[in-house]
Parts: sequence; C-alpha cells; structure tokens
Amino acid sequence: MRVLNIIAAKRNGEALTAEAIAALVKGFTDDTIPDYQMAAFLMAVFFRGMTAEETAALTMAMAASGKILDLSGIDGVKVDKHSTGGVADTTTLVVAPLVAAAGVPVAKMSGRGLGFTGGTIDKLEAIPGFRTQLSEAEFIGNLKYHQIAVTRQTDDIAPADGKIYALRDATATVESIPLIASSIMSKKIAVGADKILLDVKVGKGAFMKTLNDAIELAKTMVVIGQRVGRETIAILTSMDQPLGRAVGNSPEVAEAIDILAGRKRGRLYEVCLTLATQMLLLGQAADSAAAAREKLERLLADGAALAKFQEFIAAQGGDPAVVFRPDLLPAAQFKITVASQRRGYVQSIDPVRIGNAAMLLGAGREKKGDVIDFAVGLTMQVEVGDFVEQGQPLAVIHANDPRKAEQAQKDVLAAISLGDGKVPPPPLLLGIVDQQGYHKMS
Amino acid sequence: MRVLNIIAAKRNGEALTAEAIAALVKGFTDDTIPDYQMAAFLMAVFFRGMTAEETAALTMAMAASGKILDLSGIDGVKVDKHSTGGVADTTTLVVAPLVAAAGVPVAKMSGRGLGFTGGTIDKLEAIPGFRTQLSEAEFIGNLKYHQIAVTRQTDDIAPADGKIYALRDATATVESIPLIASSIMSKKIAVGADKILLDVKVGKGAFMKTLNDAIELAKTMVVIGQRVGRETIAILTSMDQPLGRAVGNSPEVAEAIDILAGRKRGRLYEVCLTLATQMLLLGQAADSAAAAREKLERLLADGAALAKFQEFIAAQGGDPAVVFRPDLLPAAQFKITVASQRRGYVQSIDPVRIGNAAMLLGAGREKKGDVIDFAVGLTMQVEVGDFVEQGQPLAVIHANDPRKAEQAQKDVLAAISLGDGKVPPPPLLLGIVDQQGYHKMS
Repeated sequence: MRVLNIIAAKRNGEALTAEAIAALVKGFTDDTIPDYQMAAFLMAVFFRGMTAEETAALTMAMAASGKILDLSGIDGVKVDKHSTGGVADTTTLVVAPLVAAAGVPVAKMSGRGLGFTGGTIDKLEAIPGFRTQLSEAEFIGNLKYHQIAVTRQTDDIAPADGKIYALRDATATVESIPLIASSIMSKKIAVGADKILLDVKVGKGAFMKTLNDAIELAKTMVVIGQRVGRETIAILTSMDQPLGRAVGNSPEVAEAIDILAGRKRGRLYEVCLTLATQMLLLGQAADSAAAAREKLERLLADGAALAKFQEFIAAQGGDPAVVFRPDLLPAAQFKITVASQRRGYVQSIDPVRIGNAAMLLGAGREKKGDVIDFAVGLTMQVEVGDFVEQGQPLAVIHANDPRKAEQAQKDVLAAISLGDGKVPPPPLLLGIVDQQGYHKMS
Repeated sequence: MRVLNIIAAKRNGEALTAEAIAALVKGFTDDTIPDYQMAAFLMAVFFRGMTAEETAALTMAMAASGKILDLSGIDGVKVDKHSTGGVADTTTLVVAPLVAAAGVPVAKMSGRGLGFTGGTIDKLEAIPGFRTQLSEAEFIGNLKYHQIAVTRQTDDIAPADGKIYALRDATATVESIPLIASSIMSKKIAVGADKILLDVKVGKGAFMKTLNDAIELAKTMVVIGQRVGRETIAILTSMDQPLGRAVGNSPEVAEAIDILAGRKRGRLYEVCLTLATQMLLLGQAADSAAAAREKLERLLADGAALAKFQEFIAAQGGDPAVVFRPDLLPAAQFKITVASQRRGYVQSIDPVRIGNAAMLLGAGREKKGDVIDFAVGLTMQVEVGDFVEQGQPLAVIHANDPRKAEQAQKDVLAAISLGDGKVPPPPLLLGIVDQQGYHKMS
C-alpha cells in the first residue's frame, strides 16, 4: 500500500492493516516517508480515530522501532508504573521502593519534567551523586539484585515515538486518544515489564481535563496491553490541586522520605498506597487488595520501605544518608512564608499556576534543555477544604533569587482561592479501569 | 497568531481571519513555515472546510504571492475562461478566438495535460511554430491588438498555489472544495481578467463526480469572484463521455478548425456556443443570450471566427496556413479503425479509459515532464445513444507505434459498452451557477 493510499484510507475513515501501519512507522523512522505525509496522516487520525486493532498495531510498530529489553532473566512478575503527569506527583519516589520492598521487581524508565509538570528523573538527580543513566546491564543487574531500577529513557527506546511526538507537538495533533495511548504504551512495552500500572490524572492540572476523556484514554491503554499480552490496569486520580504538599525536586524527595519513613499521611500517601496495592496484585505478591494494603502498611511501619529506598539510592550511586538526613539534599537560600490575606475556606488551588510558579523559581523547564535548580520550589501548607485565618501560612517558598521569590508569592496568592463557603474535600481516587472496564472506587 | 494556533483553530472548526491566512500562505511560500505544518493545516481544512470569507482570503493570499498582471490598459471588459478539465475538451481552442472575434478580449493562461486529461498549451503546440511562452509585454500587446492571447502559466503567477498544490498531491488533501476553488481562482485573479467564466465538468471523466459536488464547487468559486470584485459565472457540463470526437493534440486542433469553419456541430459545438454566449454577456458585447448566440453563429458562418483563429496563430508564431490545410499538423503514421464486435446501442463510453488510451498512445503524460507525441490520439466515430451494426467503426486510432495501437484498440473496445436497449442521448448542459445560485439549463 502506497503512503498516499494509507493517508487517504485513514482520511476516509477506513481501518488500516497492521502491515500498513508498520510500513508507515518504519518509513517515517528511516526517513523514507517525509514528515509532511506523516503530519497529514496524524491529522487524519485526529479526526477519524483508530480502532483498538490499529492502536495496538501502532503501539507495537513504535516499540519495534528500537531496542526491546529482555527482562526474562529476572525472577518474578516485573511491574512498571506510569503517571500521565501532574503537579506534586511524587508517587514514583514512594511507590517504586515500597513495591520493591514487597518483593515485586519494579523496572522503570522515566522522563524529565517540562512546563509545569515535574519529572521523576529530575527529582532523583536532586539526591547527591544519584546516577539516572544506567547501562542495559546495570539496569538488569540492579533489577535482579535490588528489585528496583529507574533509568532515564534513552534514544534507542521506541525512537519512532520520539520522532512522531515531536511532529505532533508542531502540528496540533497531540490531543488524540489513540496517539497519546500508543505513545505511552510503546515505551512501556519496549522497557520489557510483564505488567503495567497506569496512573491517569484527571483535572485542571492534567492532560485529561474530564473524567470521560480520562476513562477513554485509560480504556484504550488497557486494551492495548490486553492485545499485546501485557496486562495493564489504570487508576484514575484527581489533579485538580497539587497532589502532594511539596513542589520542586529536593522538596519532593524530602516528602517521599517522610512517607516512606511512615511519618506522613494525606493525599499523596493515599494515592501511593492505592497504586502500590494494585502493583502487588499485578505482581502476584498478594491475594487480595486488603492483604496487599496490610503488607504495604507494615513495610512502611517497620522501616523496610525506607531501607529499600536507601538501597536503591546506593545502588545508583547516590548518597544513602539522605534518607535520614534530608539536610544533605540541595537547600534553597531563602525560605519565605506566604501568608493568607483573608480568613476563609480554601475553595480551590490551581495546580497549573502552582506548577508554573515552581518552574519560574527554577524547579522546572520552560523549554527542553533548560537547566534546573534542584533546591527551589514550594511547600504547600493548605489543601482544598482547609480553613485558614488571615495571616496563616498558605505555602513556603524555597528560592535562591529574591525577585523570583517575590513573583512566586504573587503566583501562590493568585492560585489559591479563598471563600466563606465550606468546601468538602474533593474526591481523590476517581476510579479504576481494568479488563472489565471502568469501576468507581470507594 | 502562531502557526500552531492557526492549525489548532482550524482543527477545532474555528474560522480564521484573513490576516492569519495571509501569514500562513506567506510563511509557507518563503519557507519560514515548514511543509509538515502546512500539511497538517490542509488536512484540517479537508475535515473542517472553510467559510466563504476564509476561502476568499486564501484565494487572495495565493494570488498575492506572485505577480498580478495589470490589464487596465486594454479596452473592454477582459474575460477569462477556465475548464476544470476532461477528455476531448477542446473548448478553449474554439471559444477563445470566437469570443475575441466578437470583440471581447480573451486573456488566458493555460496549463499542460496530465494523466487522461489534455491541456490547451499542449494542443496549441501541435501547431507548427506556435509559441506558448509569451513575455508579459507580448501577452498584453497581443491582447490589445488581437483581443486574444494564450500563454503558459509561469512560475511567478500564484507561486503559493503551485507549492500548496504539490503538497496536497502528496498528502491526500486534493479533494477539498475550498482548496480546489481557491487554487483555480487564485490563478485567474493573478492573470488580471475582469470577469471569469468557469466550465465545471461533472461525471466519470471529471474531478467532480456528482452534480451536487460540482454545484458546491461552482458556488464556492462564484462567491470568491463576488467577494474579490471579479464577476464569475460557472456553467456545469457533462463529462460522462468524451466531449468532442477527437482526443489528442493534432486531432483536437483539427476538430476545433472544423467547428470554427462552421462545418461541424454536435456536443462540443453546443458547449462552446453556450460558453461563448456567457462570455459575450459578461463582456457586455450582447444584450441577451439570444442576441449573443445569433452574433456567434454569424461569426462562425461568415468566416470571422476562423480568421481570428488564424490571426491568433500568426500572432504567436504559428503557421496560419493550418486553418485551411490541417494536413500541415503533425500526422500519425498509422490510422487503424476499431470496428464494433456486435450490433446495438452505445450505452456508455468511459471517458477515463478513452483518455488513458490516448495518453498511452503518446498523446498525454503519465507523469510531469513526459514528452508527448502531438500526432497521435483517437477520433471517436460514435457517441452515447448511437446505434451501430457489427463491423461499423467505433473509433479511428492515430498511432506511431503498432504495439501501442494494438493496446489502444483493446482499450477502446473496453471503454465502449454496447447493448440492445435504446438509450436517450444523455444531458450535456447541466446548469449554470451565477450570483443568484444554481439554475437548471433548458
């Protein structure tokens, strides 16, 4: 089938064969199909969508464009975890060592942050000495001996996805469920885990703004996993306000340590425990959700989870002392408390504004390649539903530049809306999508 | 407005401003906007369409990308004529000198043929010595002194259209009414005529397969003309069988001479007279259609039309003797009569198969740049509705290669379907679209 015919068929709403999709992806990756033809195809997909078969074929074609890791030499059911990204989304730092401590190997490739969204690789690099670029042998070795390895995504993993994503970014074809789903899943499949747990964020600070869109994306990814033999489950969680209290790299590592040490609860803790429970079930390390949860709580209480985090840091060259001495993490020069200008209930906290405030302090990147400052960020002192008096702290700003700190203060005040009306705490765990479909979570 | 926002706005079904469209066309023409962004935009237009305002803005932006001729120094209302293309569509060769003979200046830029469709420039070049590349001064001079000038489209006329068309051709975005309409009209406007007559072909051998599509295209172009101050009228004519009897360059010139000499009537004659009548009305050279028709018939009868064709040929360097001695045109070595294999009524004649047969004989181009043979082609001996006995001629093949002639015989037999049932002659003149909309023609 000629490329022009492939584009026309998709434009006309026909379903493409796996062969046609594979030829398209291969041709685009090796530069025999020009970017303008791929751009027209992607826009046609935006309008016409893709069937489950087509989406699975696209996923596999992109995964096959590069190296596919072979983790079969490692005992146990290997589980990967992926979040669609948000603000104060520190889940990987907690969940990966916690699940590994329960005996389920966690194999993970992560990315860097961009815009208001943080990235796990950046957060880990805030730990002095931590190496995020592992060779394939190190990755597999660490997984084998420590049940945990987190590495930077390399160019040889699903290169077609990287090339297609860059084109989508420049042609207004990002917002397409089959394209988003296949992009995420192609990388997960190439990394070689047996099972995949997805954390699909929903809300103002997430890529998916509505529950319906998030359910559709989750279902699409779960079906891809089913079709390609990698069981996949998706948890839908709210991103209408920052998830954790800390925003920024050092602050988020510190918060993860607090949770792993068993001394902090709250929204981030709840999401982490829910994700970890599902990973234990996927990894066949527990018979029921209740048993998994009990096991996880014990690992947090008896120090095993924190010990695994320490082992993980040491295995990747970082300073393991940070888990007991968070003061070894890069610290900001100035800490400025933002006080509430009125009394009232916190009506909402705009996660995008908070994320952008942290980014402008230096915690994130406006564009790829920007250098970030690990020390800076924010520590939120309130969440939606809280009551505050005038003058009570709303957030603490960690800054190295007084002018940026001043801007951040304004941003925080603008992000937090206060009112007289009582506000119930908004729902956090919105649902789960498994092979039977979507279910609400209690 | 950034390009990405322009693409996204069109993708979301928003109407763009004239400024945004102008910026897009300008940026694409000067290579500051990459082809992949334009490709995504074009596919979004395919799905979302364009308003009349947007289509007019796109037309003017493409026209403004190059030279716009100034014909204001020439007396009279200058009228251009454009056919959307077909098989045995020899209308320009007849209509242009006929209308010029009536005193209406005909300023025309034409293209070459491609695939099964012929091109006026190729046909004129079949006349020994005929020059189809005129300088701007020659074009305007000929128009002034002979009321007729036909030249090859040059690269400096609407270059944006040429570049966008090439991209559409490679991205399955050709079949979009606003894109087709703006492409045609941008060139017409750049050539500078005051009024435009369009011949929109409908049927198997035309770009528009259905009357409804043709009406939509015609209306779109008429509205563009209205918005940009160039009165435009469209005639819808059938292309379900070859229009004239001759297919190929020399044969079509010979047929045009027959009509201009007043010795041949038929379907081609009828379409030519209808088009010429409308051009006289547009050019204010007649008060009514009846008066225009009478004038045109007189010009054919008294030799004035043929004399104008001769004057036109001489003015562009061709041998004017051809109008009385068609044997001076390139002639094929072999003339082979295709005889009917059965008796019956001609049910249909596939114009695409006939056009392709002529192309394969050498009369047309499979791809741009192919060299053509002016001498070869076909002369049809029947049309739909005719009754033929077994052995009666269906067509005469003009060939320079016996093997190609053999193939053409098979093609002609396959193109003509014979049956026992009587078939009424199919409608030829389907309607007219003017500023009041579509009207059937009697």
